[in-house]
Amino acid sequence: MNIIDIINKTKKSQELNEDEIAWLVKGYTNGDIPDYQMSAWLMAVCLNGLTEKETFALTAAMRDSGDILKLHLPFTADKHSTGGVGDKTSLIIGPIVAACGVCVAKMSGRGLGHTGGTIDKLESIEGYRTDLPLDEFERILRRTGFSIISQTGELCPADKKMYALRNATGTVDSISLICASIMSKKLATNADCLVLDVKYGSGAFMKTKEDAEKLAVLMERAGRSAGKKCKAVVTDMDSPLGRNIGNALEVKEAVEVLQGKVKGRLYDTCIELAADMLELAGKGTNDECRKYAEDAVSSKKALDVLRETIRLHGGNEKICDDTSLLPQPLLRYEIRATKDMKILGFNCEELGMTSLLLGAGRLSKEDKLDMSAGIVMNCEIGAQLAADDIIMTLYSTVCSDFSDAAVRALNAVKFEITEKPAYT
Amino acid sequence: MNIIDIINKTKKSQELNEDEIAWLVKGYTNGDIPDYQMSAWLMAVCLNGLTEKETFALTAAMRDSGDILKLHLPFTADKHSTGGVGDKTSLIIGPIVAACGVCVAKMSGRGLGHTGGTIDKLESIEGYRTDLPLDEFERILRRTGFSIISQTGELCPADKKMYALRNATGTVDSISLICASIMSKKLATNADCLVLDVKYGSGAFMKTKEDAEKLAVLMERAGRSAGKKCKAVVTDMDSPLGRNIGNALEVKEAVEVLQGKVKGRLYDTCIELAADMLELAGKGTNDECRKYAEDAVSSKKALDVLRETIRLHGGNEKICDDTSLLPQPLLRYEIRATKDMKILGFNCEELGMTSLLLGAGRLSKEDKLDMSAGIVMNCEIGAQLAADDIIMTLYSTVCSDFSDAAVRALNAVKFEITEKPAYT
Repeated sequence: MNIIDIINKTKKSQELNEDEIAWLVKGYTNGDIPDYQMSAWLMAVCLNGLTEKETFALTAAMRDSGDILKLHLPFTADKHSTGGVGDKTSLIIGPIVAACGVCVAKMSGRGLGHTGGTIDKLESIEGYRTDLPLDEFERILRRTGFSIISQTGELCPADKKMYALRNATGTVDSISLICASIMSKKLATNADCLVLDVKYGSGAFMKTKEDAEKLAVLMERAGRSAGKKCKAVVTDMDSPLGRNIGNALEVKEAVEVLQGKVKGRLYDTCIELAADMLELAGKGTNDECRKYAEDAVSSKKALDVLRETIRLHGGNEKICDDTSLLPQPLLRYEIRATKDMKILGFNCEELGMTSLLLGAGRLSKEDKLDMSAGIVMNCEIGAQLAADDIIMTLYSTVCSDFSDAAVRALNAVKFEITEKPAYT
Repeated sequence: MNIIDIINKTKKSQELNEDEIAWLVKGYTNGDIPDYQMSAWLMAVCLNGLTEKETFALTAAMRDSGDILKLHLPFTADKHSTGGVGDKTSLIIGPIVAACGVCVAKMSGRGLGHTGGTIDKLESIEGYRTDLPLDEFERILRRTGFSIISQTGELCPADKKMYALRNATGTVDSISLICASIMSKKLATNADCLVLDVKYGSGAFMKTKEDAEKLAVLMERAGRSAGKKCKAVVTDMDSPLGRNIGNALEVKEAVEVLQGKVKGRLYDTCIELAADMLELAGKGTNDECRKYAEDAVSSKKALDVLRETIRLHGGNEKICDDTSLLPQPLLRYEIRATKDMKILGFNCEELGMTSLLLGAGRLSKEDKLDMSAGIVMNCEIGAQLAADDIIMTLYSTVCSDFSDAAVRALNAVKFEITEKPAYT
């Protein structure tokens, strides 16, 4: 096999076989194939696409490029969202599903750019350790049924290398490459069943619902072809999920949902995804599972799971009863309506970047985070605001000048000026 | 400007402007833009194409990446063939055109892979120096009107770098990239008029006549848009031009044409291209110019030009009267018809590779050449051969085992078995 032939095949839309794809991924991962050849192939993939068979082979080859997690547990479930802003669903769904008797073993990442990372959010809890060794991870899972740690071992080095290259070469937006990137990592963490939440809209990989549905179907089939129970759902990113964006702010909101204090779209989405996971795990029909999930919240059993998991991770579990123990911001800044207006939607990518400017996110991997920083949305889509009503509130401890963030925040609001004040 | 935006534009078939293309070429040449980003862009170009405007801008940017030759001569003509096998036309046309009063100043390259290079051919003449400084080049041009030297200064470093990358990334076969590569070099050598000979068939960039015609039109327009008189013709590569392939063998054949001993397709092609150059240079109508070219051969004036040019380059000019003074091969091997057969054509790429195996070509730039090595074709397309008739003869001094070359040579012959012997 040689790389020029492989590039030329994809360039001519000829299907590569499994061996060729495995050879390509292995060669790139170990450095035999240089970046400049891989990027040419990636561009050919972006423009010509891959067949489903090729996509699944690529997913498998990337999964096999590193370690594959093997837990000594009977059955585990996992969920994945394709990069969201203000998405704290893992912190809510994990405890709910665990409270219903299905083990949720998750490895998560850190935030970069406009998207947040679950590991960062958990680290806003005083003392919480995300870098536990596998035996301790399993011990916690056996105790509470729920744990999230940062990636351990070397899962999917091929994806790591390819993702960096795709970012640098304008080759991110291929449905096949996105599928292989996400699914290879998920398959390497090796849960028995997997629910996928595919976002669409500004800031998501997929800009339209149609594209998100295509990706959802492809990922579902990739998971099944690898022998996993798999379900993908599609959700919009026209506004953040919940009111809070930022690490401690999102933990606070997750706790409030599990306390039963917060309902609405965030709660509904979490119940739906939890029900899907329970159904995949064979706990009953979707309706039955939805009931179990709701009960886990109302009975506070899910909150108990979260509390115990935080304690076992060395974190201050008291935040489950008193969220004021989470990092508190020193500074605040209100973004207000300049005129009477109707809120049409939000650009979540811009909100993510606003949050980053406030200190809650990273531009480069080395950046330190302000755990207290972030945004609280004070209105929802469709809200009629009068001039001077608060649209959102920015929080930070490290960012003394809010001007850049405020400009970005205003950019994120889609509105129309209304003739009459909204309150008449 | 940033490279990701530029890659994305071409990926989405959006036209780049001149400034963007100039920035891209400059950045790649000076190393600011790494290979892996350039190769992604090149693949997008291969798959989406460039507009004519983009192609001309790319050509100009590549031309401007290095030195532009400025000779102190009133008017110069140049010709270029897009890589041929056994193509010794420059050695014939140059002297003819010079003998008709138009200065032919050429910079040529060395052979690589299956294609030969005019510089290598000239160096098979004992003493001939191809690395003359520009002032000596001009002195010879003023004396004889014809000189060929190897590239001096740094012409088109962008093309050098891009060509190597294209070869390594499966991004050679784009008409726009081929046009820009060839025309940037030709425009940097800055002749006032230019005749382009675009080959098609096996071993040529363009496989079909249709594609070659497209490339010819594009190059002609690129040349004109840069202010040059320009004409492109299309010729097939179903068989080598002339009988001989290999360095000294081709010089020998060129001399024989100028001696008036060899007619046929090679002679006709040379007269045609010479007439085109003379016409572009304003010497008369094409018919008049054809007559001048024929006269230059029959009067031996063109041979006189070649003889004097060789002498001024330090070479043994006696080869113009006695070609046995050229390097002679020690070994020969005849490729014979195994059955009665009709010759349908030749794969010139395979013939070029056969010649390379015999020692006449290079696989890598460092390889030494056997100047005596090569092939003499003993039959033409359409020939009816009886079993044991000679198809071609292989020559070499360094290659003691002809078996590999013989296999390759046989592969190069397209034939059909005929029922009856051809001589009945």
